[in-house]
Amino acid sequence: MLIDERKQAAGTGISPVERLNALIATDMQAADKLILKGMGSTVKLIPALAAHLIESGGKRLRPMLTLAAAHAGGYGGDGHIKLAAAVEFIHTATLLHDDVVDESALRRGKVSANLVWGNKPSVLVGDFLFSRAFQLMVETGNLTVLDILSGASAIIAEGEVMQLNSARNLSVTEDHYMKVVAAKTAALFAAAAESGAVLAARGDGFIQGFEAYGENLGIAFQLVDDALDYSGRQALMGKSVGDDFREAKMTLPIILAHARAKDEEVRAFWKRVIETGNQTEADLNRAITLVEETCAIQETMRRARAYADEAKAALAILPDSEIKSALSDIADFCVERAY
Amino acid sequence: MLIDERKQAAGTGISPVERLNALIATDMQAADKLILKGMGSTVKLIPALAAHLIESGGKRLRPMLTLAAAHAGGYGGDGHIKLAAAVEFIHTATLLHDDVVDESALRRGKVSANLVWGNKPSVLVGDFLFSRAFQLMVETGNLTVLDILSGASAIIAEGEVMQLNSARNLSVTEDHYMKVVAAKTAALFAAAAESGAVLAARGDGFIQGFEAYGENLGIAFQLVDDALDYSGRQALMGKSVGDDFREAKMTLPIILAHARAKDEEVRAFWKRVIETGNQTEADLNRAITLVEETCAIQETMRRARAYADEAKAALAILPDSEIKSALSDIADFCVERAY
Repeated sequence: MLIDERKQAAGTGISPVERLNALIATDMQAADKLILKGMGSTVKLIPALAAHLIESGGKRLRPMLTLAAAHAGGYGGDGHIKLAAAVEFIHTATLLHDDVVDESALRRGKVSANLVWGNKPSVLVGDFLFSRAFQLMVETGNLTVLDILSGASAIIAEGEVMQLNSARNLSVTEDHYMKVVAAKTAALFAAAAESGAVLAARGDGFIQGFEAYGENLGIAFQLVDDALDYSGRQALMGKSVGDDFREAKMTLPIILAHARAKDEEVRAFWKRVIETGNQTEADLNRAITLVEETCAIQETMRRARAYADEAKAALAILPDSEIKSALSDIADFCVERAY
Repeated sequence: MLIDERKQAAGTGISPVERLNALIATDMQAADKLILKGMGSTVKLIPALAAHLIESGGKRLRPMLTLAAAHAGGYGGDGHIKLAAAVEFIHTATLLHDDVVDESALRRGKVSANLVWGNKPSVLVGDFLFSRAFQLMVETGNLTVLDILSGASAIIAEGEVMQLNSARNLSVTEDHYMKVVAAKTAALFAAAAESGAVLAARGDGFIQGFEAYGENLGIAFQLVDDALDYSGRQALMGKSVGDDFREAKMTLPIILAHARAKDEEVRAFWKRVIETGNQTEADLNRAITLVEETCAIQETMRRARAYADEAKAALAILPDSEIKSALSDIADFCVERAY
């Protein structure tokens, strides 16, 4: 039956994310409701600004992991709804603070909050959502999930600070880049899945399986994101292309393209556009050409594939279920969305 | 004996803050040690930037309230040390995010972190410290204090956002101003004292006494701060004068001076300098003159005095102790430091 469903899903073009969403639809709706309630405040600017990000069509991938893990473990309470909302708030707070920082022009296809409202409100509304996240976690009464998610929050902040050193710095290594990815992105994916699994109380193997799934999925997700930033496909998804390039971020495609530069002239090009930040729009075109010529995108995608496979392998420890099957397909989908 | 001590303290010029510090010296040192440890990270920029604020001679007034409350209640564990460090981290994170926002040139007599390192690292290091605060609170294993401090964090953020509406807006009312003060400043004072009292588990009266003390002390503290911003005395304390004026913040001295403006010309002056933000250094001199002429500083200080008296009255419910006596004198000192 599962195979039939998958065929059917493929036939009707339903993505595995939508499939998982349908499997836990009641929980997703309850989490959405709590998210809308939790961002409420008598201070009107707070819900107005928060809604700009929260209602702008994000896929709620992280809270979905929390709900899926709790659901897969047969959890019967309502703590997973609170955790899911908390996870989305932590993610949204990170985006708001990242926007202040990175001057990114487009976020989820919309003008970023800090361009509309300014840096000041973006920082403070992020702080509000972050606090709300902790209030919701406290409501679960579960100190283990509080420990997991407060630990993840500290690691995310460390990753974001580490990333500062990745800008305008050609000497950034693959190792440094991977540490940043693990901290700024994978830590929340891992904590989201792990904390949902903790609530289900199905033993250490169950918890570790979900944690490893989240961790590896998060790394794959970020690698694909960084590859897409140099791909025309990104434009079709309503996101701008070349954001990372304009901010002179040393993501894996650039690290590889620079390492594989064929001559001094190319190395001088990278030095100018990355280290001095002196760029024109034509430079972005040349960067894309160089990234393509050196197969840096393929290599980035190849590594993303390996992490997606690790994510799938981590699910092996879990009992079979439709949720497990959807999660496995999501790992594939995460990589395949780039093709 | 208490009276003798107070006389002695007065004679030797020891402030009641230093007196309280001496009464709980071992705890203060343990909290300091934990603060230094907690701001540590393999990401070197984090301790470097955090140290800029944390080691720059702040009085640690908020964590002192936490320790004093736990100590006064005869608490025997080590949770109050963790809470005290957490409270200082929440405060420091707020300062870092406030600096991003307000472009304040001086903070505790030093150039503000965001002028040295930029907005980006200040926001992210603030996020790190905020996360660390929650990790320390989780370590206490006490959900009540987690609830109190996460609630206070959300209220602080709301207060900071409310304050945005106070800038460049002459129509701000005293009521709005008082709400901002209660949220952005008094909430953490109250939560710091209350959470320490909760650990001591000496009953609701004890807890409420400390909460009310912290709340009223916080309001008095902020009123005095806002008065000092128009006082030459501020310069002697190593802080710049006129910061609030330059940011066109509607603090109580300005609200009162504007309400008491003697003619249209004066009203036009306030309209220009506050609403358009069109200011010269001579305008600050005139603003100080107008604030003085209308007795706006005296009125602000009179209200601070009333809140300090409320703080002292809240201590009545507590059993007599040297700590209680020092806290009472701190409420007086908080107002008297301005004379």
